[in-house]
Amino acid sequence: MKTGYLQFKPEFGNPDKNISRIKEMLSDKEFDLLVLPELANSGYLFIDKSELNDLAEDVETGKFCSALKEICSSKNAHIVSGLCERSGDRFYNSSILVRPDGKISVYRKIHLFDEEKLWFTPGYSSPEVYEISGENFQKVKIGMMICFDWFFPETARTLALKGAQIICHPSNLVMAYCQTAMFTRALENRVFTITANRIGYDVRENKELFFTGESVIVSPKGEYLCRGSKDKEEICITEIDPDIALNKNLNDRNNIFTDRKKEFYNL
Amino acid sequence: MKTGYLQFKPEFGNPDKNISRIKEMLSDKEFDLLVLPELANSGYLFIDKSELNDLAEDVETGKFCSALKEICSSKNAHIVSGLCERSGDRFYNSSILVRPDGKISVYRKIHLFDEEKLWFTPGYSSPEVYEISGENFQKVKIGMMICFDWFFPETARTLALKGAQIICHPSNLVMAYCQTAMFTRALENRVFTITANRIGYDVRENKELFFTGESVIVSPKGEYLCRGSKDKEEICITEIDPDIALNKNLNDRNNIFTDRKKEFYNL
Repeated sequence: MKTGYLQFKPEFGNPDKNISRIKEMLSDKEFDLLVLPELANSGYLFIDKSELNDLAEDVETGKFCSALKEICSSKNAHIVSGLCERSGDRFYNSSILVRPDGKISVYRKIHLFDEEKLWFTPGYSSPEVYEISGENFQKVKIGMMICFDWFFPETARTLALKGAQIICHPSNLVMAYCQTAMFTRALENRVFTITANRIGYDVRENKELFFTGESVIVSPKGEYLCRGSKDKEEICITEIDPDIALNKNLNDRNNIFTDRKKEFYNL
Repeated sequence: MKTGYLQFKPEFGNPDKNISRIKEMLSDKEFDLLVLPELANSGYLFIDKSELNDLAEDVETGKFCSALKEICSSKNAHIVSGLCERSGDRFYNSSILVRPDGKISVYRKIHLFDEEKLWFTPGYSSPEVYEISGENFQKVKIGMMICFDWFFPETARTLALKGAQIICHPSNLVMAYCQTAMFTRALENRVFTITANRIGYDVRENKELFFTGESVIVSPKGEYLCRGSKDKEEICITEIDPDIALNKNLNDRNNIFTDRKKEFYNL
Protein backbone atom coordinates (compact mmCIF):
# COMPACT_ATOMS: atom_id res chain seq x y z
CA MET A 1 0.00 0.00 0.00
CA LYS A 2 1.47 3.32 -1.09
CA THR A 3 1.04 5.91 1.63
CA GLY A 4 2.50 9.33 2.10
CA TYR A 5 2.27 12.96 2.94
CA LEU A 6 2.39 16.19 1.05
CA GLN A 7 4.21 18.97 2.91
CA PHE A 8 3.60 22.46 1.56
CA LYS A 9 2.98 26.07 2.48
CA PRO A 10 -0.70 26.90 2.24
CA GLU A 11 -1.18 30.55 1.40
CA PHE A 12 -3.49 32.24 3.86
CA GLY A 13 -6.88 33.10 2.41
CA ASN A 14 -6.16 31.69 -1.03
CA PRO A 15 -7.87 28.33 -1.47
CA ASP A 16 -7.60 28.54 -5.26
CA LYS A 17 -3.84 28.85 -5.11
CA ASN A 18 -3.65 26.08 -2.52
CA ILE A 19 -5.69 23.78 -4.73
CA SER A 20 -3.46 24.56 -7.72
CA ARG A 21 -0.31 23.91 -5.74
CA ILE A 22 -1.58 20.58 -4.44
CA LYS A 23 -2.67 19.51 -7.95
CA GLU A 24 0.67 20.53 -9.37
CA MET A 25 2.66 18.68 -6.71
CA LEU A 26 0.54 15.54 -7.13
CA SER A 27 0.35 15.58 -10.92
CA ASP A 28 2.87 12.80 -11.51
CA LYS A 29 2.38 10.95 -8.23
CA GLU A 30 0.72 7.62 -7.57
CA PHE A 31 -0.49 6.63 -4.13
CA ASP A 32 -3.22 4.81 -2.27
CA LEU A 33 -3.47 7.13 0.72
CA LEU A 34 -1.98 10.59 1.05
CA VAL A 35 -2.21 13.04 3.95
CA LEU A 36 -2.21 16.85 3.61
CA PRO A 37 -1.60 19.41 6.38
CA GLU A 38 -4.17 20.94 8.72
CA LEU A 39 -6.32 23.78 7.34
CA ALA A 40 -4.86 23.14 3.89
CA ASN A 41 -7.57 25.16 2.16
CA SER A 42 -7.46 28.32 4.28
CA GLY A 43 -4.11 28.72 6.00
CA TYR A 44 -3.80 28.97 9.76
CA LEU A 45 -3.40 32.43 11.23
CA PHE A 46 -6.83 34.04 11.50
CA ILE A 47 -7.10 37.44 13.08
CA ASP A 48 -10.86 37.88 13.02
CA LYS A 49 -13.73 35.45 13.09
CA SER A 50 -15.28 37.14 10.04
CA GLU A 51 -12.46 35.68 7.96
CA LEU A 52 -13.87 32.24 8.58
CA ASN A 53 -17.06 33.31 6.86
CA ASP A 54 -15.11 33.75 3.65
CA LEU A 55 -12.73 30.84 3.96
CA ALA A 56 -14.57 27.98 5.63
CA GLU A 57 -16.35 25.66 3.26
CA ASP A 58 -19.13 23.10 3.35
CA VAL A 59 -17.94 19.56 2.79
CA GLU A 60 -20.73 18.93 0.27
CA THR A 61 -20.31 22.05 -1.82
CA GLY A 62 -16.89 23.54 -1.15
CA LYS A 63 -14.37 23.96 -3.94
CA PHE A 64 -11.43 22.53 -2.01
CA CYS A 65 -13.39 19.36 -1.25
CA SER A 66 -14.53 19.22 -4.82
CA ALA A 67 -10.96 19.48 -6.09
CA LEU A 68 -9.82 16.69 -3.78
CA LYS A 69 -12.68 14.51 -5.02
CA GLU A 70 -11.47 15.01 -8.57
CA ILE A 71 -7.93 14.06 -7.67
CA CYS A 72 -9.05 10.97 -5.74
CA SER A 73 -11.29 9.88 -8.57
CA SER A 74 -8.69 10.36 -11.29
CA LYS A 75 -5.97 8.62 -9.26
CA ASN A 76 -8.24 5.99 -7.71
CA ALA A 77 -6.76 7.07 -4.38
CA HIS A 78 -7.66 8.29 -0.91
CA ILE A 79 -6.70 11.67 0.52
CA VAL A 80 -6.92 12.86 4.11
CA SER A 81 -6.72 16.62 4.45
CA GLY A 82 -7.15 19.33 7.01
CA LEU A 83 -10.12 21.56 6.18
CA CYS A 84 -11.44 24.83 7.51
CA GLU A 85 -15.03 23.63 7.59
CA ARG A 86 -18.36 25.40 7.80
CA SER A 87 -21.49 23.56 8.86
CA GLY A 88 -24.54 25.71 9.39
CA ASP A 89 -23.34 28.73 11.33
CA ARG A 90 -20.44 26.91 12.94
CA PHE A 91 -16.82 26.55 11.97
CA TYR A 92 -14.66 23.51 12.63
CA ASN A 93 -11.00 22.67 12.35
CA SER A 94 -11.65 19.41 10.51
CA SER A 95 -9.98 16.55 8.76
CA ILE A 96 -11.67 14.91 5.82
CA LEU A 97 -11.18 11.49 4.30
CA VAL A 98 -11.93 11.66 0.58
CA ARG A 99 -12.49 8.36 -1.21
CA PRO A 100 -12.12 7.59 -4.93
CA ASP A 101 -15.92 7.47 -5.26
CA GLY A 102 -16.23 10.95 -3.79
CA LYS A 103 -17.61 9.87 -0.45
CA ILE A 104 -16.25 12.03 2.38
CA SER A 105 -15.97 11.35 6.12
CA VAL A 106 -15.26 14.15 8.56
CA TYR A 107 -13.45 14.33 11.90
CA ARG A 108 -13.67 17.61 13.82
CA LYS A 109 -10.69 18.42 16.07
CA ILE A 110 -11.59 17.86 19.70
CA HIS A 111 -8.48 19.43 21.29
CA LEU A 112 -8.24 22.98 19.97
CA PHE A 113 -4.92 24.79 20.39
CA ASP A 114 -4.61 28.33 21.73
CA GLU A 115 -6.44 30.89 19.52
CA GLU A 116 -8.19 28.15 17.59
CA LYS A 117 -10.54 28.28 20.58
CA LEU A 118 -11.58 31.75 19.44
CA TRP A 119 -12.42 30.67 15.92
CA PHE A 120 -13.62 27.10 15.95
CA THR A 121 -16.26 24.98 17.66
CA PRO A 122 -14.56 21.92 19.13
CA GLY A 123 -15.58 18.57 17.71
CA TYR A 124 -18.18 16.86 19.85
CA SER A 125 -17.80 13.20 19.09
CA SER A 126 -15.20 10.50 19.52
CA PRO A 127 -12.68 10.09 16.69
CA GLU A 128 -13.87 7.27 14.45
CA VAL A 129 -12.17 4.65 12.34
CA TYR A 130 -12.96 4.05 8.66
CA GLU A 131 -12.37 0.98 6.57
CA ILE A 132 -10.98 1.68 3.13
CA SER A 133 -10.09 -0.58 0.21
CA GLY A 134 -8.36 -0.05 -3.10
CA GLU A 135 -6.60 -1.78 -5.95
CA ASN A 136 -3.54 -2.58 -3.85
CA PHE A 137 -5.06 -3.09 -0.40
CA GLN A 138 -8.20 -4.47 1.18
CA LYS A 139 -10.10 -3.44 4.30
CA VAL A 140 -7.54 -1.23 5.96
CA LYS A 141 -8.78 0.75 8.93
CA ILE A 142 -7.65 4.33 9.26
CA GLY A 143 -8.26 7.02 11.82
CA MET A 144 -7.75 10.77 11.79
CA MET A 145 -6.47 13.18 14.40
CA ILE A 146 -5.40 16.78 13.92
CA CYS A 147 -2.20 18.48 15.09
CA PHE A 148 -2.50 19.22 18.86
CA ASP A 149 -4.63 16.08 19.32
CA TRP A 150 -1.25 14.27 19.39
CA PHE A 151 -0.43 15.80 22.77
CA PHE A 152 -3.15 13.74 24.43
CA PRO A 153 -2.18 10.06 24.40
CA GLU A 154 -5.88 9.27 24.66
CA THR A 155 -6.53 10.37 21.07
CA ALA A 156 -4.23 7.93 19.30
CA ARG A 157 -5.07 5.27 21.89
CA THR A 158 -8.79 5.66 21.21
CA LEU A 159 -8.20 5.29 17.47
CA ALA A 160 -5.93 2.28 17.91
CA LEU A 161 -8.34 0.53 20.25
CA LYS A 162 -11.08 1.11 17.65
CA GLY A 163 -8.88 -0.74 15.19
CA ALA A 164 -7.00 1.98 13.32
CA GLN A 165 -3.96 0.57 11.51
CA ILE A 166 -2.91 3.94 10.16
CA ILE A 167 -3.39 7.23 11.98
CA CYS A 168 -3.55 10.13 9.54
CA HIS A 169 -2.46 13.33 11.20
CA PRO A 170 -2.84 16.64 9.32
CA SER A 171 -0.84 19.23 11.24
CA ASN A 172 0.28 22.85 11.44
CA LEU A 173 2.96 22.42 14.07
CA VAL A 174 4.61 25.50 15.52
CA MET A 175 6.97 23.50 17.72
CA ALA A 176 8.95 20.37 16.87
CA TYR A 177 8.00 18.23 19.86
CA CYS A 178 5.41 16.26 17.96
CA GLN A 179 7.78 14.90 15.34
CA THR A 180 9.79 13.29 18.14
CA ALA A 181 6.78 12.17 20.13
CA MET A 182 5.17 10.38 17.17
CA PHE A 183 7.77 7.68 17.78
CA THR A 184 5.99 7.00 21.05
CA ARG A 185 2.47 7.27 19.61
CA ALA A 186 3.26 4.74 16.87
CA LEU A 187 5.15 2.37 19.16
CA GLU A 188 2.77 2.36 22.13
CA ASN A 189 -0.15 1.56 19.83
CA ARG A 190 1.70 -0.45 17.20
CA VAL A 191 0.18 1.57 14.39
CA PHE A 192 1.48 3.50 11.42
CA THR A 193 1.29 7.27 11.83
CA ILE A 194 1.44 9.83 9.04
CA THR A 195 1.98 13.38 10.26
CA ALA A 196 1.66 15.85 7.37
CA ASN A 197 2.98 19.18 8.57
CA ARG A 198 3.14 22.50 6.76
CA ILE A 199 6.12 24.78 6.35
CA GLY A 200 6.72 28.50 6.17
CA TYR A 201 5.34 31.56 7.90
CA ASP A 202 1.83 32.93 8.22
CA VAL A 203 2.19 36.70 8.63
CA ARG A 204 -0.96 38.69 9.33
CA GLU A 205 -0.85 42.30 10.47
CA ASN A 206 1.20 42.26 13.68
CA LYS A 207 1.08 38.49 14.10
CA GLU A 208 3.44 35.88 12.78
CA LEU A 209 3.69 32.13 13.12
CA PHE A 210 6.39 29.82 11.85
CA PHE A 211 5.63 26.18 11.08
CA THR A 212 8.21 23.48 11.57
CA GLY A 213 7.86 21.06 8.65
CA GLU A 214 9.58 17.70 9.16
CA SER A 215 6.50 15.67 8.34
CA VAL A 216 6.98 12.11 9.54
CA ILE A 217 5.77 8.60 8.82
CA VAL A 218 6.43 6.17 11.67
CA SER A 219 5.99 2.39 11.67
CA PRO A 220 4.42 0.29 14.45
CA LYS A 221 7.96 -0.50 15.58
CA GLY A 222 8.88 3.14 15.94
CA GLU A 223 10.94 3.35 12.75
CA TYR A 224 10.92 6.68 10.92
CA LEU A 225 10.04 5.66 7.36
CA CYS A 226 10.08 9.25 6.13
CA ARG A 227 11.11 12.53 7.69
CA GLY A 228 10.69 15.70 5.68
CA SER A 229 12.84 18.80 5.60
CA LYS A 230 12.15 21.77 7.84
CA ASP A 231 11.40 24.23 5.09
CA LYS A 232 10.80 22.67 1.68
CA GLU A 233 7.64 21.70 -0.11
CA GLU A 234 7.87 17.98 -0.73
CA ILE A 235 6.09 14.70 -1.00
CA CYS A 236 7.10 11.39 0.52
CA ILE A 237 5.36 8.24 -0.61
CA THR A 238 6.40 4.93 0.86
CA GLU A 239 5.21 1.34 0.60
CA ILE A 240 3.85 -0.09 3.85
CA ASP A 241 2.15 -3.30 4.90
CA PRO A 242 -0.73 -2.10 7.07
CA ASP A 243 -1.39 -5.63 8.35
CA ILE A 244 1.72 -5.27 10.53
CA ALA A 245 -0.42 -2.97 12.67
CA LEU A 246 -2.92 -5.75 13.32
CA ASN A 247 -0.36 -7.66 15.37
CA LYS A 248 -0.29 -6.29 18.89
CA ASN A 249 2.07 -8.98 20.23
CA LEU A 250 5.44 -7.73 21.43
CA ASN A 251 6.62 -11.27 22.16
CA ASP A 252 5.07 -14.64 23.04
CA ARG A 253 3.80 -13.37 26.38
CA ASN A 254 2.99 -9.69 25.85
CA ASN A 255 0.15 -8.24 23.84
CA ILE A 256 -0.05 -4.49 24.26
CA PHE A 257 -3.84 -4.46 24.20
CA THR A 258 -4.71 -7.52 26.28
CA ASP A 259 -1.97 -6.58 28.77
CA ARG A 260 -3.73 -3.31 29.56
CA LYS A 261 -4.90 -3.16 33.18
CA LYS A 262 -7.95 -0.98 32.75
CA GLU A 263 -9.14 -1.71 36.27
CA PHE A 264 -6.07 0.05 37.68
CA TYR A 265 -6.09 3.10 35.43
CA ASN A 266 -7.56 6.26 36.78
CA LEU A 267 -8.26 8.22 33.64
CA MET B 1 15.37 19.56 45.48
CA LYS B 2 18.27 17.24 44.66
CA THR B 3 17.04 14.27 42.65
CA GLY B 4 18.87 11.62 40.74
CA TYR B 5 19.48 8.06 39.73
CA LEU B 6 22.08 5.44 40.44
CA GLN B 7 22.92 3.28 37.42
CA PHE B 8 24.78 0.09 38.22
CA LYS B 9 25.09 -3.60 37.46
CA PRO B 10 23.31 -5.67 40.08
CA GLU B 11 24.97 -9.07 40.38
CA PHE B 12 22.47 -11.86 40.04
CA GLY B 13 21.75 -13.67 43.29
CA ASN B 14 24.09 -11.55 45.39
CA PRO B 15 22.10 -9.03 47.43
CA ASP B 16 25.00 -8.51 49.85
CA LYS B 17 27.30 -7.44 47.07
CA ASN B 18 24.57 -5.24 45.57
CA ILE B 19 24.02 -3.53 48.90
CA SER B 20 27.77 -2.94 49.29
CA ARG B 21 28.07 -1.52 45.81
CA ILE B 22 25.14 0.86 46.34
CA LYS B 23 26.54 1.99 49.70
CA GLU B 24 29.93 2.53 48.17
CA MET B 25 28.60 4.52 45.23
CA LEU B 26 26.46 6.67 47.53
CA SER B 27 29.02 7.19 50.27
CA ASP B 28 29.94 10.76 49.37
CA LYS B 29 26.67 11.76 47.73
CA GLU B 30 23.94 14.07 48.98
CA PHE B 31 20.44 13.98 47.61
CA ASP B 32 16.79 14.32 48.55
CA LEU B 33 15.39 11.63 46.26
CA LEU B 34 17.34 8.96 44.42
CA VAL B 35 16.08 6.17 42.16
CA LEU B 36 17.73 2.73 41.79
CA PRO B 37 17.10 0.16 39.03
CA GLU B 38 14.46 -2.56 38.97
CA LEU B 39 15.17 -5.72 40.99
CA ALA B 40 18.24 -4.04 42.45
CA ASN B 41 18.55 -6.62 45.22
CA SER B 42 18.30 -9.80 43.15
CA GLY B 43 19.28 -9.21 39.55
CA TYR B 44 16.92 -9.93 36.70
CA LEU B 45 17.42 -13.19 34.84
CA PHE B 46 15.73 -15.98 36.80
CA ILE B 47 15.72 -19.46 35.36
CA ASP B 48 13.65 -21.22 37.96
CA LYS B 49 10.95 -20.09 40.34
CA SER B 50 12.77 -21.70 43.26
CA GLU B 51 15.40 -18.98 42.95
CA LEU B 52 12.84 -16.45 44.07
CA ASN B 53 12.50 -18.33 47.34
CA ASP B 54 16.10 -17.50 48.11
CA LEU B 55 16.26 -14.00 46.69
CA ALA B 56 12.90 -12.34 47.30
CA GLU B 57 12.62 -10.48 50.57
CA ASP B 58 9.94 -9.18 52.86
CA VAL B 59 9.73 -5.42 52.99
CA GLU B 60 9.56 -5.46 56.78
CA THR B 61 12.44 -7.83 57.45
CA GLY B 62 14.62 -8.02 54.33
CA LYS B 63 18.27 -7.04 54.42
CA PHE B 64 18.17 -4.96 51.26
CA CYS B 65 15.28 -2.91 52.62
CA SER B 66 17.04 -2.61 55.92
CA ALA B 67 20.20 -1.33 54.23
CA LEU B 68 18.24 1.27 52.28
CA LYS B 69 16.54 2.41 55.50
CA GLU B 70 19.96 2.97 57.06
CA ILE B 71 21.14 4.99 54.08
CA CYS B 72 17.96 7.10 54.04
CA SER B 73 18.17 7.72 57.75
CA SER B 74 21.85 8.70 57.71
CA LYS B 75 21.44 10.97 54.69
CA ASN B 76 18.00 12.27 55.63
CA ALA B 77 16.96 11.30 52.12
CA HIS B 78 14.42 9.29 50.14
CA ILE B 79 15.25 6.32 47.93
CA VAL B 80 13.04 4.57 45.39
CA SER B 81 14.31 1.14 44.42
CA GLY B 82 13.23 -1.90 42.51
CA LEU B 83 12.85 -4.91 44.81
CA CYS B 84 12.35 -8.60 44.28
CA GLU B 85 9.65 -8.86 46.96
CA ARG B 86 8.12 -11.72 48.86
CA SER B 87 4.80 -11.36 50.61
CA GLY B 88 3.38 -14.54 52.09
CA ASP B 89 3.82 -17.17 49.40
CA ARG B 90 3.79 -14.70 46.55
CA PHE B 91 6.56 -12.89 44.72
CA TYR B 92 6.28 -9.41 43.23
CA ASN B 93 8.39 -7.25 40.98
CA SER B 94 8.07 -4.22 43.23
CA SER B 95 9.27 -0.70 43.72
CA ILE B 96 9.70 0.66 47.23
CA LEU B 97 9.81 4.21 48.48
CA VAL B 98 12.03 4.38 51.56
CA ARG B 99 11.72 7.49 53.74
CA PRO B 100 14.26 8.93 56.19
CA ASP B 101 12.15 7.70 59.11
CA GLY B 102 12.22 4.15 57.72
CA LYS B 103 8.62 4.09 56.55
CA ILE B 104 8.27 2.17 53.29
CA SER B 105 5.56 2.29 50.61
CA VAL B 106 5.32 -0.42 47.96
CA TYR B 107 4.13 -0.46 44.35
CA ARG B 108 3.88 -3.84 42.64
CA LYS B 109 4.40 -3.84 38.88
CA ILE B 110 1.09 -4.25 37.08
CA HIS B 111 2.44 -4.80 33.55
CA LEU B 112 4.82 -7.75 33.71
CA PHE B 113 7.23 -8.24 30.79
CA ASP B 114 7.77 -11.59 29.09
CA GLU B 115 9.18 -14.25 31.48
CA GLU B 116 8.43 -12.07 34.48
CA LYS B 117 4.96 -13.54 34.05
CA LEU B 118 6.43 -16.92 35.01
CA TRP B 119 7.99 -15.67 38.22
CA PHE B 120 5.90 -12.86 39.61
CA THR B 121 2.33 -12.17 40.63
CA PRO B 122 1.20 -8.97 38.90
CA GLY B 123 0.32 -6.06 41.15
CA TYR B 124 -3.39 -5.79 41.75
CA SER B 125 -3.98 -2.18 42.62
CA SER B 126 -3.70 1.18 40.93
CA PRO B 127 -0.33 2.95 41.18
CA GLU B 128 -0.54 5.45 44.02
CA VAL B 129 1.01 8.81 44.71
CA TYR B 130 2.91 9.65 47.92
CA GLU B 131 3.60 13.03 49.45
CA ILE B 132 7.13 13.47 50.75
CA SER B 133 8.88 16.32 52.50
CA GLY B 134 12.44 17.01 53.51
CA GLU B 135 14.86 19.71 54.53
CA ASN B 136 14.97 21.23 51.06
CA PHE B 137 11.44 20.58 49.81
CA GLN B 138 7.91 20.43 51.13
CA LYS B 139 4.93 18.28 50.15
CA VAL B 140 6.14 16.93 46.84
CA LYS B 141 4.02 14.18 45.32
CA ILE B 142 5.82 11.29 43.71
CA GLY B 143 4.64 8.16 41.92
CA MET B 144 6.38 4.93 41.01
CA MET B 145 6.21 2.78 37.91
CA ILE B 146 8.53 -0.05 36.90
CA CYS B 147 10.27 -0.62 33.57
CA PHE B 148 7.70 -2.00 31.04
CA ASP B 149 4.93 0.01 32.73
CA TRP B 150 6.26 2.89 30.60
CA PHE B 151 4.96 1.25 27.44
CA PHE B 152 1.38 1.88 28.53
CA PRO B 153 0.63 5.59 28.47
CA GLU B 154 -2.10 4.92 31.01
CA THR B 155 0.43 4.24 33.79
CA ALA B 156 2.17 7.61 33.78
CA ARG B 157 -1.15 9.31 33.02
CA THR B 158 -2.78 7.69 36.04
CA LEU B 159 0.07 8.86 38.27
CA ALA B 160 0.04 12.37 36.84
CA LEU B 161 -3.73 12.70 37.22
CA LYS B 162 -3.36 11.59 40.83
CA GLY B 163 -0.99 14.49 41.30
CA ALA B 164 2.50 13.01 40.82
CA GLN B 165 5.08 15.72 40.16
CA ILE B 166 7.93 13.24 39.83
CA ILE B 167 7.56 9.75 38.37
CA CYS B 168 10.26 7.43 39.71
CA HIS B 169 10.94 4.64 37.27
CA PRO B 170 13.25 1.77 38.31
CA SER B 171 14.08 -0.18 35.15
CA ASN B 172 15.95 -3.10 33.64
CA LEU B 173 15.56 -2.13 30.00
CA VAL B 174 16.70 -4.57 27.36
CA MET B 175 15.86 -2.23 24.49
CA ALA B 176 16.50 1.50 24.18
CA TYR B 177 13.01 2.61 23.14
CA CYS B 178 12.06 3.77 26.59
CA GLN B 179 14.84 6.31 26.97
CA THR B 180 13.50 8.07 23.85
CA ALA B 181 9.86 7.67 24.79
CA MET B 182 10.29 9.18 28.25
CA PHE B 183 10.44 12.52 26.43
CA THR B 184 6.80 11.97 25.53
CA ARG B 185 5.79 10.65 28.96
CA ALA B 186 7.25 13.70 30.71
CA LEU B 187 5.92 16.19 28.18
CA GLU B 188 2.38 14.85 27.80
CA ASN B 189 1.91 14.86 31.58
CA ARG B 190 4.15 17.82 32.42
CA VAL B 191 5.94 15.85 35.11
CA PHE B 192 9.55 15.06 35.93
CA THR B 193 10.54 11.47 35.18
CA ILE B 194 13.54 9.64 36.60
CA THR B 195 14.32 6.37 34.80
CA ALA B 196 17.07 4.48 36.63
CA ASN B 197 18.25 1.73 34.32
CA ARG B 198 20.84 -0.96 34.93
CA ILE B 199 23.79 -1.88 32.75
CA GLY B 200 25.67 -5.06 31.87
CA TYR B 201 24.73 -8.63 31.14
CA ASP B 202 22.88 -11.22 33.17
CA VAL B 203 24.21 -14.61 32.02
CA ARG B 204 22.53 -17.71 33.43
CA GLU B 205 23.13 -21.17 31.98
CA ASN B 206 22.07 -20.88 28.32
CA LYS B 207 20.33 -17.54 28.74
CA GLU B 208 21.74 -14.07 28.41
CA LEU B 209 20.27 -10.60 28.60
CA PHE B 210 21.95 -7.28 27.94
CA PHE B 211 20.69 -4.10 29.59
CA THR B 212 20.90 -0.76 27.89
CA GLY B 213 21.85 1.80 30.54
CA GLU B 214 21.31 5.42 29.53
CA SER B 215 19.27 6.26 32.59
CA VAL B 216 17.39 9.52 31.99
CA ILE B 217 15.86 12.39 33.90
CA VAL B 218 13.37 14.40 31.85
CA SER B 219 11.71 17.68 32.78
CA PRO B 220 8.00 18.59 32.30
CA LYS B 221 9.07 20.44 29.15
CA GLY B 222 10.72 17.39 27.66
CA GLU B 223 14.30 18.47 28.40
CA TYR B 224 16.82 15.72 29.14
CA LEU B 225 18.39 16.90 32.40
CA CYS B 226 20.61 13.82 32.64
CA ARG B 227 21.36 10.95 30.29
CA GLY B 228 23.68 8.21 31.47
CA SER B 229 26.20 6.20 29.53
CA LYS B 230 25.29 2.86 27.96
CA ASP B 231 27.70 0.78 30.02
CA LYS B 232 29.14 2.54 33.05
CA GLU B 233 28.11 2.54 36.66
CA GLU B 234 27.32 6.13 37.53
CA ILE B 235 25.21 8.52 39.51
CA CYS B 236 23.54 11.68 38.28
CA ILE B 237 22.10 14.09 40.81
CA THR B 238 20.47 17.27 39.58
CA GLU B 239 18.61 20.15 41.17
CA ILE B 240 14.97 20.43 40.10
CA ASP B 241 12.01 22.58 41.09
CA PRO B 242 9.18 20.05 41.43
CA ASP B 243 6.58 22.83 41.55
CA ILE B 244 7.06 23.32 37.81
CA ALA B 245 5.14 20.07 37.45
CA LEU B 246 2.10 21.58 39.20
CA ASN B 247 1.53 23.94 36.31
CA LYS B 248 -0.41 22.14 33.58
CA ASN B 249 -0.90 25.26 31.45
CA LEU B 250 0.77 25.18 28.04
CA ASN B 251 -0.34 28.73 27.29
CA ASP B 252 -3.14 31.11 28.30
CA ARG B 253 -5.79 28.93 26.68
CA ASN B 254 -4.55 25.35 27.03
CA ASN B 255 -4.33 23.30 30.18
CA ILE B 256 -3.38 19.73 29.40
CA PHE B 257 -5.61 18.31 32.11
CA THR B 258 -8.75 20.45 31.79
CA ASP B 259 -8.49 20.21 27.98
CA ARG B 260 -8.89 16.44 28.12
CA LYS B 261 -12.10 15.28 26.44
CA LYS B 262 -12.84 12.23 28.51
CA GLU B 263 -16.30 11.89 27.03
CA PHE B 264 -14.78 11.17 23.61
CA TYR B 265 -12.08 8.75 24.69
CA ASN B 266 -12.75 5.09 24.28
CA LEU B 267 -10.24 3.54 26.62
